[in-house]
Order: sequence, then structure tokens, then C-alpha cells
Amino acid sequence: MSVSYPKGVKPKTQGDIVKTSKKSAHAKISSGNRGMSFESAINETNAYYIEKDIAVVTKRPTPINVVSVDYSKGAIITKAYFETQSTTDYNGVYKGRYLDFEAKSTISKTSFPLSNIAPQQIEHLKRVNRHGGITFFLFELATLREVYLVPSDFVITYYETRPRSSIPFKDIREKGIKIEEGYAPRFDYLKAVEEVYLK
Amino acid sequence: MSVSYPKGVKPKTQGDIVKTSKKSAHAKISSGNRGMSFESAINETNAYYIEKDIAVVTKRPTPINVVSVDYSKGAIITKAYFETQSTTDYNGVYKGRYLDFEAKSTISKTSFPLSNIAPQQIEHLKRVNRHGGITFFLFELATLREVYLVPSDFVITYYETRPRSSIPFKDIREKGIKIEEGYAPRFDYLKAVEEVYLK
Repeated sequence: MSVSYPKGVKPKTQGDIVKTSKKSAHAKISSGNRGMSFESAINETNAYYIEKDIAVVTKRPTPINVVSVDYSKGAIITKAYFETQSTTDYNGVYKGRYLDFEAKSTISKTSFPLSNIAPQQIEHLKRVNRHGGITFFLFELATLREVYLVPSDFVITYYETRPRSSIPFKDIREKGIKIEEGYAPRFDYLKAVEEVYLK
Repeated sequence: MSVSYPKGVKPKTQGDIVKTSKKSAHAKISSGNRGMSFESAINETNAYYIEKDIAVVTKRPTPINVVSVDYSKGAIITKAYFETQSTTDYNGVYKGRYLDFEAKSTISKTSFPLSNIAPQQIEHLKRVNRHGGITFFLFELATLREVYLVPSDFVITYYETRPRSSIPFKDIREKGIKIEEGYAPRFDYLKAVEEVYLK
């Protein structure tokens, strides 16, 4: 069975890492939000930041392992596989500072499963922290329609010490900064970055 | 005709932007170097920086527009197209600063053709400059086996004012910092970054 996508739509990886867009597709059904995936909302926010010349943050493309290409009519990839991102999905520059973060969504009503975060993402964030970058997670609690910026330090410690296999929302609310949804930008996470890192 | 690639080998885009690896494939023939593309040498350098915990610089994956996926055995992409990178190929963090650059190779013996640089890459670099990022080009003059770090300011001005359609090597040598080839790291471009931006 072969599934076709409209131009520009990127399918999700099938690994054990739950991508934001996949989760949000579920959220769309269960929470009746405006039908936009969290990933799309963050991309829209980044486009707003670029348009208003506030910051330059971009999404790294999904890595794809190309196996075969048909060059008979241009270059059509005829066989390829999705690969797991070895870093986070987003990085960029704001006020001269390096930003690096992962945006994750969950449909859970109580906690965020750590299995949604890949070990190499944790390693990447630890490295970036050592070199003075600003790193965090944007968590969407999709069924509750809440979004938080949580500094990576807390998530890394939780990931490595594993008091539980998922982070209770209580902790996310306590350690994070709530980001209210707006029209433009959709999720003004740089306001939270200012508050946490640049004050 | 369908061409198969060994795992991990990424074929080049077919657009009008000449990718470093493509050019270096030519260079391999004409200059008898060690057969490693410039892109691979920069990737190796970045791996060294990560291993030695000096900096975190990564290559953005080539964006691919996925058209159809066969989910009957996992997720095999059965039709997709290479897309043009809307930014540069590399970014990362060094001493808290945001780095953003493009690595380009030419087999020309006299000058670097500006047609190898996409307008959206120039726009991206201008944006990053406005936000305090460190931006530059790494140019490989493949037939001469010389590599230079050239600050993006000079390249942007040349690109926009077009005194010529290609930058003479004389100017690259004058405006750039020469990067000698080594064993590990292959091209220690951070040494040039220190010299130009952090002294």
C-alpha cells in the first residue's frame, strides 16, 4: 500500500520517538483544537519571528537515507528511509545567543512519557549546554491545550535519574513557563526565553 | 535508470546550486586529492570538535519533499524529490556564540562563481548577521588545494553589487583567512573564527 501526500507535507517517522505532528494529529480529534499540529504552530511562530526580524530559528529537515534515485526524468528518489534526528528539531539565533530546542506534544492527561525523547537528543542538549547555548523543551499538553517552555536542565536530570518513566504535568507546570496561545505569534516562546535566560 | 547508493551516502541535489560534494567529486579527478569531498572533510572536522568537546556544529540534512510512502513493510519512501536548502548547510554553537556558514568548493582555477550561492542563502546570512550571529563561507579552491574562511559581509556585498559574476581568488585570499589542511581536525576553521571574530 502506498500513501500519497500533498506537496510540502512531511510524513512522520515510524520509530519509537513520537513526533509532535503525529501526536497533535491525535490531539486534533480529542481536544477539538484548530487542527494545526504543534510542530506547524512552532514553524508558524518561527516564520513570524523571521518576518518581524526578531530572531532566526529554523527547523532541521527530517534526515532521510536515500537508497536509490531515478535520474531519467530529473532526479526522483525511488527508495529511501526516514532516519532519526541525531540532534533536536530546532535551532537558531536570538540576540546573538544560540538557541536549541525540541518541541514535543503529548495526548496524555497526566504526564509526559520520557520514551518520547531520544537518548541522542539528551546528549546533544548536554553538549550545547556546555558551550553556552540556551536549550529547552516546548511541551504541548495537547488534551489540556497548555504549552510550557521547560529548561533542558530539569528534563535532562529527570531523564537520567528516572524517578518515574514520565514527567508529571505538575512538575512541568512548576518548572516551566506557560506560553499562552496567540494569533501572531502563535506561541511566543521567546518571551519565556527572555524571562528565564536573559533577565 | 535507477541508481543505488551505499547506506549513508547522500546523493547531491540536481538544482543550479552546486553542492560542495559534487564539485569535490570533480576535484578528485582533476587534482588527485585524497578523494574526500570538501563536505565530508568539514563533517569530519565537526565530528572532531564534538568529540573533543570544543564546539557543537552540525550539518542540516538535505530537505526532501516526500510524495509517497509504502507502509506495508515499515515505512519506505517510494517517491520523493530533493529540495533546495533555504538556509546554509551548517550551524552551531561555539563559546556561546551562534555560528552559521556555508561550505563551497570550486574547480575553477581563477575565481569562485557567484551562481554557486543561492539568493535565499544570502538573505539568511544577512538576517543572522542582524541578530549577532557569526557567519562566513568556507571556500575550497579545489584545484589549488587551498581553503579559506571568508566573512559573509564581503561575500554578501560582492553578491549584491556584482562587480563581477565570480569572486577572483585574489580577493578570496585577501579577504579570507587561509585554513591549512591537517589530520585531525581536517580543516580547523574555528582557529580562523577566533582570529576574525573573537580576538
